[in-house]
Amino acid sequence: MEIVRGIKELQTKVTAIKKTGKKVGFVPTMGYLHEGHLTLVREAKKECDVVIVSIFVNPLQFGPKEDFSKYPRDFERDCKMLEAENTDIVFNPEPSEMYPEGFQTFVEVTEVTKTLCGTSRPGHFRGVTTVVLKLFNAAKPDKAFFGEKDFQQLVTIRRMVKDLNLSIEIIGVPIVREPDGLAMSSRNTYLKGDERKSALCLYRSILVAKEYVAKGERNAKKILAVVQDVIENTPLTKIDYVKLCNPDTLEYIEDGELKGKTLLALAVFVGGTRLIDNAILEV
Amino acid sequence: MEIVRGIKELQTKVTAIKKTGKKVGFVPTMGYLHEGHLTLVREAKKECDVVIVSIFVNPLQFGPKEDFSKYPRDFERDCKMLEAENTDIVFNPEPSEMYPEGFQTFVEVTEVTKTLCGTSRPGHFRGVTTVVLKLFNAAKPDKAFFGEKDFQQLVTIRRMVKDLNLSIEIIGVPIVREPDGLAMSSRNTYLKGDERKSALCLYRSILVAKEYVAKGERNAKKILAVVQDVIENTPLTKIDYVKLCNPDTLEYIEDGELKGKTLLALAVFVGGTRLIDNAILEV
Repeated sequence: MEIVRGIKELQTKVTAIKKTGKKVGFVPTMGYLHEGHLTLVREAKKECDVVIVSIFVNPLQFGPKEDFSKYPRDFERDCKMLEAENTDIVFNPEPSEMYPEGFQTFVEVTEVTKTLCGTSRPGHFRGVTTVVLKLFNAAKPDKAFFGEKDFQQLVTIRRMVKDLNLSIEIIGVPIVREPDGLAMSSRNTYLKGDERKSALCLYRSILVAKEYVAKGERNAKKILAVVQDVIENTPLTKIDYVKLCNPDTLEYIEDGELKGKTLLALAVFVGGTRLIDNAILEV
Repeated sequence: MEIVRGIKELQTKVTAIKKTGKKVGFVPTMGYLHEGHLTLVREAKKECDVVIVSIFVNPLQFGPKEDFSKYPRDFERDCKMLEAENTDIVFNPEPSEMYPEGFQTFVEVTEVTKTLCGTSRPGHFRGVTTVVLKLFNAAKPDKAFFGEKDFQQLVTIRRMVKDLNLSIEIIGVPIVREPDGLAMSSRNTYLKGDERKSALCLYRSILVAKEYVAKGERNAKKILAVVQDVIENTPLTKIDYVKLCNPDTLEYIEDGELKGKTLLALAVFVGGTRLIDNAILEV
């Protein structure tokens, strides 16, 4: 497994690899890896000849009051986990390599970023699309793999790829959960004491929503109400949002009857930690 | 010479060409070609094996009150001129191919676009960078050629390419002028009667500025004043801007002494037609 720190160095390596006809898979991460990330790497290994994983905690996608400085980092541990998955290249640039002095170019997807986390985290998706486009141009992948846990991110990246005519196939990979149902996230490490137990309310509320839909409930308001109830009745929690959306446009569905596929998306503070989760409700 | 209308079709063709080891040169234009464009094509032919010229009047870079609908178009004439230069591929997409329904991704270079035409034409450079990135991703060139007449555009594209880690060499090509000095532009066709003669004041004011510098004048205010004088003393003209700038950052130099290279940049309405011109003053 090779560790590469420079953009030009990565481009040179990838160009040589692609000349041999090999397909390149790419998994962008912010490190502090868990089974969710490793599932992406395994999918990439299955579908591609060479797999590049980037580890870069991207300052541009954190708000000024968010957790950039305390975001968990453990590069050595990450490398061991990636080595065990037969990752070919780890790309681990410094912030100054990604954003040198004078940097001033940004990519924005304007519509699908307006709802959900786009409301709570202004500038977040601009940071995501900008870094992902830069990483795509550095790693030049044939396919790139993203977790469905960050559903809005996945929709946004798909939109960017389509709108900018990038020749990259975007693959969404289902959420990986802890045995008790908590969606895997590097931020779960922030949960202390009873918070870990309270954090289960996100998945529990999703299961309740699915149950209601399975039993024939179609009313958006009623489904939103039961999800909110489950969370509000859990100690240490504060809802950031509980929303039903069109899974393509991410526009809110606030009342009326559910039809076809609907995204249920949640963001909940548990103690000081903001967690997200989601599921597709299908009728 | 092949005419291609679809983005995917162009990508497929270019990918096949590049597999044979050939270098691809790209000249983006809005058509209604003149010697300025043809000089870009000739430079591209010199430096590359295959030359792609795009002809696309990009709605995104025109303001709501600007000349998008009346911008001159003559595709047949353009094709004859490009054929005569041994152009390999003409890319001529419909607006609906470039901006299909749901399109919502934009690229912005935030600093070098703040001055000069960025002030007079809000949103213009966002339209330019977005379309050029899309065209780059469609034509996948090794080198792309831009005229120095649109100096701020050239600086902006260079910045975008650097910031987004595109593996494309950007080549700036000097301004091509009519025998009497008027910088070539598709918009010169708008000039009627005495306006054509008045339009010469842009180049004339540049020559006067160069003469002053050659004679030892270094004072920014004095140089700006003589340029303004030349233009204001010409009938049918109205100054949009007359500026001295740092040629890298495009920051204004409003007083003090000129040092090294300074960009003199002009935008002047002649009748209803907005013309631009520029030169580097070197001391």
